[in-house]
Amino acid sequence: MRKVIIGVMGPGNGAKTLDLNSAFELGKLIARKGWLLLSGGRNEGVMEAVNKGAKLAKGLTIGIIAGSDNEHTSEDVDIAIVTDLGSARNNINALTSDIVIACGMSTGTASEVTLALKAGKNVVLLNNDQKAKTFFKNLDKEHVFIAENPRKAIQIAQKLIG
Amino acid sequence: MRKVIIGVMGPGNGAKTLDLNSAFELGKLIARKGWLLLSGGRNEGVMEAVNKGAKLAKGLTIGIIAGSDNEHTSEDVDIAIVTDLGSARNNINALTSDIVIACGMSTGTASEVTLALKAGKNVVLLNNDQKAKTFFKNLDKEHVFIAENPRKAIQIAQKLIG
Amino acid sequence: MRKVIIGVMGPGNGAKTLDLNSAFELGKLIARKGWLLLSGGRNEGVMEAVNKGAKLAKGLTIGIIAGSDNEHTSEDVDIAIVTDLGSARNNINALTSDIVIACGMSTGTASEVTLALKAGKNVVLLNNDQKAKTFFKNLDKEHVFIAENPRKAIQIAQKLIG
Amino acid sequence: MRKVIIGVMGPGNGAKTLDLNSAFELGKLIARKGWLLLSGGRNEGVMEAVNKGAKLAKGLTIGIIAGSDNEHTSEDVDIAIVTDLGSARNNINALTSDIVIACGMSTGTASEVTLALKAGKNVVLLNNDQKAKTFFKNLDKEHVFIAENPRKAIQIAQKLIG
Repeated sequence: MRKVIIGVMGPGNGAKTLDLNSAFELGKLIARKGWLLLSGGRNEGVMEAVNKGAKLAKGLTIGIIAGSDNEHTSEDVDIAIVTDLGSARNNINALTSDIVIACGMSTGTASEVTLALKAGKNVVLLNNDQKAKTFFKNLDKEHVFIAENPRKAIQIAQKLIG
Repeated sequence: MRKVIIGVMGPGNGAKTLDLNSAFELGKLIARKGWLLLSGGRNEGVMEAVNKGAKLAKGLTIGIIAGSDNEHTSEDVDIAIVTDLGSARNNINALTSDIVIACGMSTGTASEVTLALKAGKNVVLLNNDQKAKTFFKNLDKEHVFIAENPRKAIQIAQKLIG
Repeated sequence: MRKVIIGVMGPGNGAKTLDLNSAFELGKLIARKGWLLLSGGRNEGVMEAVNKGAKLAKGLTIGIIAGSDNEHTSEDVDIAIVTDLGSARNNINALTSDIVIACGMSTGTASEVTLALKAGKNVVLLNNDQKAKTFFKNLDKEHVFIAENPRKAIQIAQKLIG
Repeated sequence: MRKVIIGVMGPGNGAKTLDLNSAFELGKLIARKGWLLLSGGRNEGVMEAVNKGAKLAKGLTIGIIAGSDNEHTSEDVDIAIVTDLGSARNNINALTSDIVIACGMSTGTASEVTLALKAGKNVVLLNNDQKAKTFFKNLDKEHVFIAENPRKAIQIAQKLIG
């Protein structure tokens, strides 16, 4: 039976400490809900942190890998989907996630948010500044949600899943 | 921790009864080994049969979906990776599978076999006629294996995984 | 010898009259420079208008088609690259363009802008509101440029190409 | 107005002298017909040779590039479509070509032939051994054609285009 998949997107290399802490927390909360975690799967930044959190809470983790092998895949990814698509794989992240949570912001994260909105998915923004919130809300009022902290993000996700 | 993924590829619509029976058997055997099953995930042909077998044996099943939603996804797929890539998703099947088993033959299956060989993966051919066996063996002697039945295919896979 | 390719991105269906007029103008100016025009290639919105302008000025036009055939391809596209990748083709638009001009805004256009920035490309924004300008400038100060009209957009592009 | 595009596929690194000579000849003949040449665009093997031939005859050449930039693009490619899709770009080669000519054989070439057949395209085989001819003819009698030399391949293509 098809499982619920929550995508958590966020900066790799340049992630802030707040983003990393939030991602770790999100991973734990997603796992405790019994949802699957989907991420870009790399061993750095928000991707690394969210997978670590999910595994600590004994969740199941999926990584949609941009490269052609698992050389840079986080060790906390259980199921590595190797795409070799570069950033084109961001659209798979968007399409496969029942809900996308953006934890922090970067050009890659922004592409995942906009591709998710393009596909009609709901997106929860976490740790975003006013400029990003205003832009995305203006782009798609109906599908963009703002969360103040990881717990609130999960509450919104739960309500949207129903 | 990264899990072993066995890809089973084969005809959709035009699958023969022998291919369907073999796929069902392969699904069961893969699940019993504790491996994850990967397929194209559609609700027909070898894809449908192999997922059914795997779920009967309580395995975990991944479908790499060619379309943009799950309208044609088999109900026995647990984890649906929605790509909207059409046949370009065949390369993800090849790259993500630790080993590819081709159960029957079609243009799509042949593309998955050749993309897997291009990526240096081992491929096990099942239920293939002499023309296909000769062609693929000639294309890449080292990575092409021939199995007489599903049980033998799994034995070869087990030996290759080590 | 490799030719200069300018990508013009913008809304399809929901394009405003201003965007359509600007796109038509951009197409003409790009063709007169001897540059190739790249777009999403569909027969609507900014894509249709920019190709029409380019052909009027006897330019050469490339369409990177999201679908699996040319049923919805603009008649003013000379070279139709059929990808069947859905929105994943937006990354090809970004990578193939020497410079990206965003004419108007939508979720798809925003994904092309962010994917272009992710790839280190220069992006010129035209007909964008203050929210979009502020967000993108904040995301990548170095590679985002603002143009007041099509002529200015082409001047910026010319300067960047050198 | 949409232009006719002929795709020529063949081995890169491991191409035989016969394949290289045939590819060079094919490039010239395609250009003389006024058709566009499409290839994988790399600066080696059949890709390099066919582009060289086409440019000598003043044709227009398109390369569908597997990598993320033009570092390994043939200098005889006029229009470089940068995909960063790895072997998934082989499906774009198949879908974009009105007709595919396979000049020599390799795992990559075989994937392009099978993806083209899957998409209902006509494929002309050149310089292939009996094993390949037999396999592909058996896979899709209707869309596979055999040519004895480049001139014959172009005659077949001309007849199919009508």
